[in-house]
Amino acid sequence: MRAVYLKEKGIFIEKDIPKPQPGPGQVLVKVKSVGVCGSDVHYWEHCRIGKFVVEKPLILGHEVSGEIAEIGRDVEGFCIGDKVVIEPGTPCGRCGYCKTGRYNLCKEIKFFATPPFDGAFCEYIAHNSDLIFKIPEGIDMDTATLVEPLSVGTFAAQRAGIGLLDRIIIYGAGVIGICCMLIAKEWGAADITMVDIREERLKLALEMGADKTIRIPVEEAPGETYDLAFECTGVAASLKDACRTVKPGGKIHVLGLGANSLQEIPIVDVVVGEQTITTSFRYANAFAVTLDIIKKQKEKLSKFITHKFALNDIQKAFETAKNDKDAMKVIVNL
Amino acid sequence: MRAVYLKEKGIFIEKDIPKPQPGPGQVLVKVKSVGVCGSDVHYWEHCRIGKFVVEKPLILGHEVSGEIAEIGRDVEGFCIGDKVVIEPGTPCGRCGYCKTGRYNLCKEIKFFATPPFDGAFCEYIAHNSDLIFKIPEGIDMDTATLVEPLSVGTFAAQRAGIGLLDRIIIYGAGVIGICCMLIAKEWGAADITMVDIREERLKLALEMGADKTIRIPVEEAPGETYDLAFECTGVAASLKDACRTVKPGGKIHVLGLGANSLQEIPIVDVVVGEQTITTSFRYANAFAVTLDIIKKQKEKLSKFITHKFALNDIQKAFETAKNDKDAMKVIVNL
Amino acid sequence: MRAVYLKEKGIFIEKDIPKPQPGPGQVLVKVKSVGVCGSDVHYWEHCRIGKFVVEKPLILGHEVSGEIAEIGRDVEGFCIGDKVVIEPGTPCGRCGYCKTGRYNLCKEIKFFATPPFDGAFCEYIAHNSDLIFKIPEGIDMDTATLVEPLSVGTFAAQRAGIGLLDRIIIYGAGVIGICCMLIAKEWGAADITMVDIREERLKLALEMGADKTIRIPVEEAPGETYDLAFECTGVAASLKDACRTVKPGGKIHVLGLGANSLQEIPIVDVVVGEQTITTSFRYANAFAVTLDIIKKQKEKLSKFITHKFALNDIQKAFETAKNDKDAMKVIVNL
Amino acid sequence: MRAVYLKEKGIFIEKDIPKPQPGPGQVLVKVKSVGVCGSDVHYWEHCRIGKFVVEKPLILGHEVSGEIAEIGRDVEGFCIGDKVVIEPGTPCGRCGYCKTGRYNLCKEIKFFATPPFDGAFCEYIAHNSDLIFKIPEGIDMDTATLVEPLSVGTFAAQRAGIGLLDRIIIYGAGVIGICCMLIAKEWGAADITMVDIREERLKLALEMGADKTIRIPVEEAPGETYDLAFECTGVAASLKDACRTVKPGGKIHVLGLGANSLQEIPIVDVVVGEQTITTSFRYANAFAVTLDIIKKQKEKLSKFITHKFALNDIQKAFETAKNDKDAMKVIVNL
Repeated sequence: MRAVYLKEKGIFIEKDIPKPQPGPGQVLVKVKSVGVCGSDVHYWEHCRIGKFVVEKPLILGHEVSGEIAEIGRDVEGFCIGDKVVIEPGTPCGRCGYCKTGRYNLCKEIKFFATPPFDGAFCEYIAHNSDLIFKIPEGIDMDTATLVEPLSVGTFAAQRAGIGLLDRIIIYGAGVIGICCMLIAKEWGAADITMVDIREERLKLALEMGADKTIRIPVEEAPGETYDLAFECTGVAASLKDACRTVKPGGKIHVLGLGANSLQEIPIVDVVVGEQTITTSFRYANAFAVTLDIIKKQKEKLSKFITHKFALNDIQKAFETAKNDKDAMKVIVNL
Repeated sequence: MRAVYLKEKGIFIEKDIPKPQPGPGQVLVKVKSVGVCGSDVHYWEHCRIGKFVVEKPLILGHEVSGEIAEIGRDVEGFCIGDKVVIEPGTPCGRCGYCKTGRYNLCKEIKFFATPPFDGAFCEYIAHNSDLIFKIPEGIDMDTATLVEPLSVGTFAAQRAGIGLLDRIIIYGAGVIGICCMLIAKEWGAADITMVDIREERLKLALEMGADKTIRIPVEEAPGETYDLAFECTGVAASLKDACRTVKPGGKIHVLGLGANSLQEIPIVDVVVGEQTITTSFRYANAFAVTLDIIKKQKEKLSKFITHKFALNDIQKAFETAKNDKDAMKVIVNL
Repeated sequence: MRAVYLKEKGIFIEKDIPKPQPGPGQVLVKVKSVGVCGSDVHYWEHCRIGKFVVEKPLILGHEVSGEIAEIGRDVEGFCIGDKVVIEPGTPCGRCGYCKTGRYNLCKEIKFFATPPFDGAFCEYIAHNSDLIFKIPEGIDMDTATLVEPLSVGTFAAQRAGIGLLDRIIIYGAGVIGICCMLIAKEWGAADITMVDIREERLKLALEMGADKTIRIPVEEAPGETYDLAFECTGVAASLKDACRTVKPGGKIHVLGLGANSLQEIPIVDVVVGEQTITTSFRYANAFAVTLDIIKKQKEKLSKFITHKFALNDIQKAFETAKNDKDAMKVIVNL
Repeated sequence: MRAVYLKEKGIFIEKDIPKPQPGPGQVLVKVKSVGVCGSDVHYWEHCRIGKFVVEKPLILGHEVSGEIAEIGRDVEGFCIGDKVVIEPGTPCGRCGYCKTGRYNLCKEIKFFATPPFDGAFCEYIAHNSDLIFKIPEGIDMDTATLVEPLSVGTFAAQRAGIGLLDRIIIYGAGVIGICCMLIAKEWGAADITMVDIREERLKLALEMGADKTIRIPVEEAPGETYDLAFECTGVAASLKDACRTVKPGGKIHVLGLGANSLQEIPIVDVVVGEQTITTSFRYANAFAVTLDIIKKQKEKLSKFITHKFALNDIQKAFETAKNDKDAMKVIVNL
């Protein structure tokens, strides 16, 4: 089968490799659509993210939909041809994190496109059937790939916990920030303010349902106003500002990862204001509920997909994702 | 009645002022014993803590026990002569924080010895009876004043939540750190490690029940080991280290307030490890349960009180609290 | 001022009594609109509910809106003429329940129209200003009285906790059941099924936003299907059925109070299915958020108010509330 | 290998069956000690519990310790000869309950000695290594089998949540009730009252650390006194009484399963008192922490084991467990 590897910084190569076989409890998925994530672009540019280093050719891509092509032993509930999305991390299933429902923290998790584990820019993937989810009627393959980034927002909201009519501020109006916004709206938030430096992103946020926007540094968020802030940027100034805009007793939920591993927080204000800082990493048990949300919001979500390319044009797809200011979500079709 | 005011940096003056009258719902307490807190010493030295500035003579002291001397209208359950402790913050009772049980966050709270509100170095105090707690049989007046700092630990533990057999590390083996340790022990912690730079404090911590000690910077705490850390120092290095020593999925509870209003946290590790940072400020609804703990641990707690002075010698009491390395808790008796 | 008392079963009398004076922290409200609650009708018919017995003439009514007529000492934030609703229970503010935010459990609470405390069918009421809430722009006085029953739903939802896209079944499509439905919808429930024996109620429930209805005993709810059930009827069969229709690991929230103080639950299934039974009684801290919801749903809510009467016709109002099958909410205007 | 099957009511037969082989991820355990549980005795007498019916010969026993005899592929952390206990339920690992940490609710769980799944009265068991726990130094094989019933108490306490210095009442001073008591003590309960009809059980409860006992029906528990009740009897009168003795706002945790699948609760009092009824079924993720507790309390726990028999005498072991009033825990050794 065809598979596209990142060979070195900025360079993809295509190889012909054996088609995988589904083992017991697995299905074989014929890949149809793969979203390009910021982390894919980062590996393509730098061949590393933090401690994860691309040491041999790696298949990128972890936002993926396709069709069931084969069904392994001991699998129920799937038919050949079913349209599905793949949850791209395979946890060990046996450690303390897995057994307490926090499998996203599993030290042995095999996550697509995180070295040394290959991702989805290839024709077929064999994967455990409990990590495969049927796409609801009426959602196309491309939109379905959004379940992955949207699940990051779903899980963030679940970890933070959204109270009835909470007032929320979200730092970063990129894909993840807008996903958090969509989920928070579904979950009864009263009033959501999005913060970003780029006007076009804030415009899109408003179109997708945000109540207000604040364009920093021109505008400034009010102090001690919100019940909950989501920090989706990884930028140090945003984390500090998030603490400042949340009311005493409120919460700051951090999911953005940036270049600085150390960041300052206004610790005295956080303690005196008895704020709580919660966090989330990727997701666990979020795909099913997220697919239901996609079903309800598919029109809005279609605005997310700005570009589509064939696998042959993967290089262009990555260049677009990196350089085109209008690019929100770039899709590669197989 | 006699009252001792902080007049300016380092200088107390005694005044004769009118004895207060208990209003409806209040009792009058004849003060017997007042503990000297680090914040009292800080005001005495600097006439300010953060935004709180001593602009006119102020009575210090907020760890206080005494006897009921008069009983106001609409008060039940107290008799003249009852030995009691005073919870030193009077919240407004009407704001959103008060009505949801988080009265420690009340913006209108009148807290002893926090400008402009007077504290306890005086003969009589009129106070709302719902903030007065009877001292259990067998606990002397001096030990009873410890209910105030110990309640800071009780409340911290309640806000953090201690799981069955949690492994805990506590940064700072001063009064508050040891209070957290005593509460965590009562609440089923398996194994408590205390961290400090001063050997004599760690020795006392062991005597009072700690399982292990780490003397920094000579020794280093192991990484990703604990379920929960309490940061009681306000020191930037401790906060960073607390995050590092806690396991993925664990909690860091911060209650220490230090000189630096901004402090760094290893945010990428905190997010990837999905840690939660909780905080607590003073206490709410903690005195009753803390008095029960004092009853169970009164022998241990007597080790806390290292010095006693008469009100006439308040200057010496503060000098001792500041300068004497062996001083844990200094008491002023009336 | 005019005041209408329940004298004996079924008999109201009007008296002229002194207009109350607002004390410190209080305002005087000129009553404009009072909703007739099922409990009012029950007292009118039986002169008792459980242990609460009408032993002397009692003013009924606890769903009440009006205008600020006078402002007492130490009150901020109100002007003469402000349109407001009254939270009808005055807790002691000093007991353990009040101080931990659960003031609805206060043993000393003075609740309107619960013997021996008078209610709202009178011209003026003096009330603590922290229990007075301004009516948002665009909501009329009659609709505003719905904040009281709707708050029962708000609080029930808050105590139960509604997860993102929870599937919910509600037993009882009366005022409280529909209030629970409206709140659950606002809070992100995916799919709400209402159960009742009366077709017209289920029709209204659908109009107000329910997704499905089940008319018992003709239709039967499916087993082990829902994440959460609200039991709003007080009927024994409903409680049993609620346990049966909820999935293992799910919750049954009970707020309905019926004639039978003892009711059976399928305890073995509840334990083996590890279900949780939560409850709520009246509400605490629910009026502000409920007013925001009323603002968002005022068109829908106007369908609730089916009849209006003048105070002179209070007898007719109660007869309508009791006998008219089309009556959902009957209002008495002053 | 030898294996003892329950053939029909009251009749065991021994068979020689092939020794199992450990598959990938499994170890082979040579069984040394098996506790006789009330459910084993019930199957032995009636060949059924509820919907679970013994339709073909079944090996009983699910409280089991032994030694590692063989180690399968992909297993780390075990050596031949390690002394271990076996967690006796094997969940599917793939369903929603398993993946959210509630694997005790897995519909596909294979639980020892629950038809059609065989249990532990046999020489060797092959079992997944993540369900095998090493016995801490200093604990003998027989005491180690107590980890199973004690884990029921650990999990009940974790599901109920024990607050600092909670006052607790426990209905039923049998093995499970006393296990709940031991765990609650470890977790900071202030004051534990045990209720039973049998004096000798209450005596043992006191010896094992209970603070008070109430022998019903001679003595009666006080009303509205406790923060939390554990109902471990399955007896209808106890459930009703548990609700009555808990304070408004408190919790009743039910884990006892009795003959009556329907039981009455005082629902009006439960709702008006805003109590919560929590439940637990078996356990999940409880063995490791329970082994730590056994280590701390091994002297106390040795009192639990009142009788020991060889496998040849299994019939006598079951007769003793059923008929001997002094029997708390009967052990069968291999």
